[in-house]
Amino acid sequence: MALIVQKYGGSSVADADSIKRVAKRIAEAKRAGDSVVVVVSAMGDTTDELIDLAQQMTPLPPSREMDILLTAGERISMSLLAMAISSLGVDAQSFTGQQAGVITDSVHGRARIIDVTPGRIQQAVEGGAVAIVAGFQGVTQSTNDVTTLGRGGSDTTAVALAAALGADVCEIYTDVDGVFTADPRIVPTARKIDRISYDEMLEMAASGAKVLMLRCVEYARRYAVPVHVRSSFSAHTGTLVTDATEEVEGAPMEQPIIAGVAHDRSEAKITIVDVPDVPGKAARIFEVVAGSGVNLDMIVQNVSVASTGRTDISFTLPAADGAAATAALTEHQPDIGFGSLQYDDTIGKLSLIGAGMKSHPGVSARLFAALSDAGINIEMISTSEIRISVVTRADQLDEAVRAVHTAFDLDSADGQAVVYGGSGR
Amino acid sequence: MALIVQKYGGSSVADADSIKRVAKRIAEAKRAGDSVVVVVSAMGDTTDELIDLAQQMTPLPPSREMDILLTAGERISMSLLAMAISSLGVDAQSFTGQQAGVITDSVHGRARIIDVTPGRIQQAVEGGAVAIVAGFQGVTQSTNDVTTLGRGGSDTTAVALAAALGADVCEIYTDVDGVFTADPRIVPTARKIDRISYDEMLEMAASGAKVLMLRCVEYARRYAVPVHVRSSFSAHTGTLVTDATEEVEGAPMEQPIIAGVAHDRSEAKITIVDVPDVPGKAARIFEVVAGSGVNLDMIVQNVSVASTGRTDISFTLPAADGAAATAALTEHQPDIGFGSLQYDDTIGKLSLIGAGMKSHPGVSARLFAALSDAGINIEMISTSEIRISVVTRADQLDEAVRAVHTAFDLDSADGQAVVYGGSGR
Repeated sequence: MALIVQKYGGSSVADADSIKRVAKRIAEAKRAGDSVVVVVSAMGDTTDELIDLAQQMTPLPPSREMDILLTAGERISMSLLAMAISSLGVDAQSFTGQQAGVITDSVHGRARIIDVTPGRIQQAVEGGAVAIVAGFQGVTQSTNDVTTLGRGGSDTTAVALAAALGADVCEIYTDVDGVFTADPRIVPTARKIDRISYDEMLEMAASGAKVLMLRCVEYARRYAVPVHVRSSFSAHTGTLVTDATEEVEGAPMEQPIIAGVAHDRSEAKITIVDVPDVPGKAARIFEVVAGSGVNLDMIVQNVSVASTGRTDISFTLPAADGAAATAALTEHQPDIGFGSLQYDDTIGKLSLIGAGMKSHPGVSARLFAALSDAGINIEMISTSEIRISVVTRADQLDEAVRAVHTAFDLDSADGQAVVYGGSGR
Repeated sequence: MALIVQKYGGSSVADADSIKRVAKRIAEAKRAGDSVVVVVSAMGDTTDELIDLAQQMTPLPPSREMDILLTAGERISMSLLAMAISSLGVDAQSFTGQQAGVITDSVHGRARIIDVTPGRIQQAVEGGAVAIVAGFQGVTQSTNDVTTLGRGGSDTTAVALAAALGADVCEIYTDVDGVFTADPRIVPTARKIDRISYDEMLEMAASGAKVLMLRCVEYARRYAVPVHVRSSFSAHTGTLVTDATEEVEGAPMEQPIIAGVAHDRSEAKITIVDVPDVPGKAARIFEVVAGSGVNLDMIVQNVSVASTGRTDISFTLPAADGAAATAALTEHQPDIGFGSLQYDDTIGKLSLIGAGMKSHPGVSARLFAALSDAGINIEMISTSEIRISVVTRADQLDEAVRAVHTAFDLDSADGQAVVYGGSGR
């Protein structure tokens, strides 16, 4: 008998019929003999509707009140789901984040989990019930105030609960069949990945793949929770995210060189022109940017022009933070002493990810050749041990992704997005 | 500086604009120098919508899950109200029933408050904030499970909090101007009552006056909480429910004989015909009825017919319980040994309430004369020290209420429902 944590997102419980469909699926897993803990998000548009109501009150709602408001959404979906499961003759009880023991810090709107004490969940499961837990929410230890975990919060709740319960697997149900070698909307020949390592999945998520949020993967890696990303609309097996060295039944043994191609259209590039090339200037620039609360991504410094002793520094950042970073830098132009600032939000980022590239030195050459053959100019490059990222023009990004996907033999054999006919549980 | 508990019902916070209007009113009270604690119900139709969703899951939702579902409603209204107040520059924080320390027993759907420990509310108020508390809900002490208080629950929350906080007054905001001498929809000349004793208000509530629920008045009387029933749509003073002996500024000193006329159309009458008039038979009948979970109201036993040694017993009960009581009695017909059962749900009940009637022996004679003059037949009578109730035909009830209202000089001078121009706070 396995202990399974299942997580259903908002699109899986969008309306009464969807909730009943999910309930049936959960009841089947339970009847098959497994212990089941379910983490659920708010129904479809509920969160947006609540945000809209808050905006009608005030343009800047206090974050503590916003968290209380938004957590009403999971309260509704979790109790309805428990009712639907009960009506199928399977005992089910719902629990708030607080009742499930999800303890967080007190940063409302994007709280971090600091502990999970799932005593009541264990009790419910041992008593034979399906435990339904509200995703996305927790409670502060000191004041018992309600918090929300921010984007991807429900996935993180599921993985954190799975870790605390010592679950055999954390199944993340979504509206796609798993993690693909590229976004199938851009690359119709993208293949579903059967198995991917935590490290690769981390790089995929950090590079723009949206199927799993970065923090959820970080959590899963830290606690070695096997994550199964799969569709709530089919019985197919999806993608297993797990330790690269672990033997998993049915998963391929050989490690491919490349796991997939991710892309990101949400970044912008700032180039600081004519910076005095003396020690401490770069540090000062990034101090100023960090002080405005902005997270940088790629950073490139050109070799300085010997005759002038000045250089250019470029970096990418979320386009949403562009105004804040630009304002902070302009304010400090006198003391940094740079010439001018260029802001460009028409860039795209392509990332090639694969644990196998560590031992294959030809990967970057093949990547650059593929882009060159497709007539695509590379503006910036950054690498990690298992990732190469390049910045291109935004309007060339789709073509770049397709070219690289083909160059690394990731296209499916029949030229169609493959939805693997899994074992069907 | 006074400490005021204000309670706003669902119709007062039905939509975004209503919430903003209420927020303005609360901010004014706070700016006038008072400490303000607010109890709020769910927005307008929210509860009905949630019940409808639950019904789509299963016809008989588990009561624990139903309570979790329904409490989402107050979570939404309370956080929105706190946001609206904050946007007016007044600090406001919302609290769930649990955070406010509303401890209940574990009878889901109609839990009773067993303790209120409002430490966090006191802290918020002392810190200068308006505390917004979710009405209608509490939490069990042992398991931290969410409970709801059932009908009139938010009023009870407000009075219980006022008692625990030692508030100067509990203001119940509603969509009418206060408690009237009769229902103004039936008696257009009904007058608003400026002041009424707990005892009288209890009898009014028990006799069908809907403006305050019985349990809320019981709680107020037990803890001597002055309750001010008033309109959220005007600044008029409403009705002060308080101790009869207490001196209250501005309230009339003389105690009128009659406070008002209440009516109730929700009861039915069961007559058990031909009951053996031997000791224990009545007890057995009411044992059987109580065993079916039904609360009786009036009971009348006729003098037995000497020649037969048999008698008739009539009682009234909520019409909603009619089927359960009838079934239980029919099942026990053999061992009780009665002849037959008559069920009648076309009755109405009129109640005349007034603490002054204790010392005025002519009251019942005047009541019966008024009904007789209006051609209305009395089917049952029951009395308490400060109330006389009679059962009539349902279709004669309105006429009966008007006749009695006039006979006891309760009509307003100008023949119109008077909305007193109060002091306006």
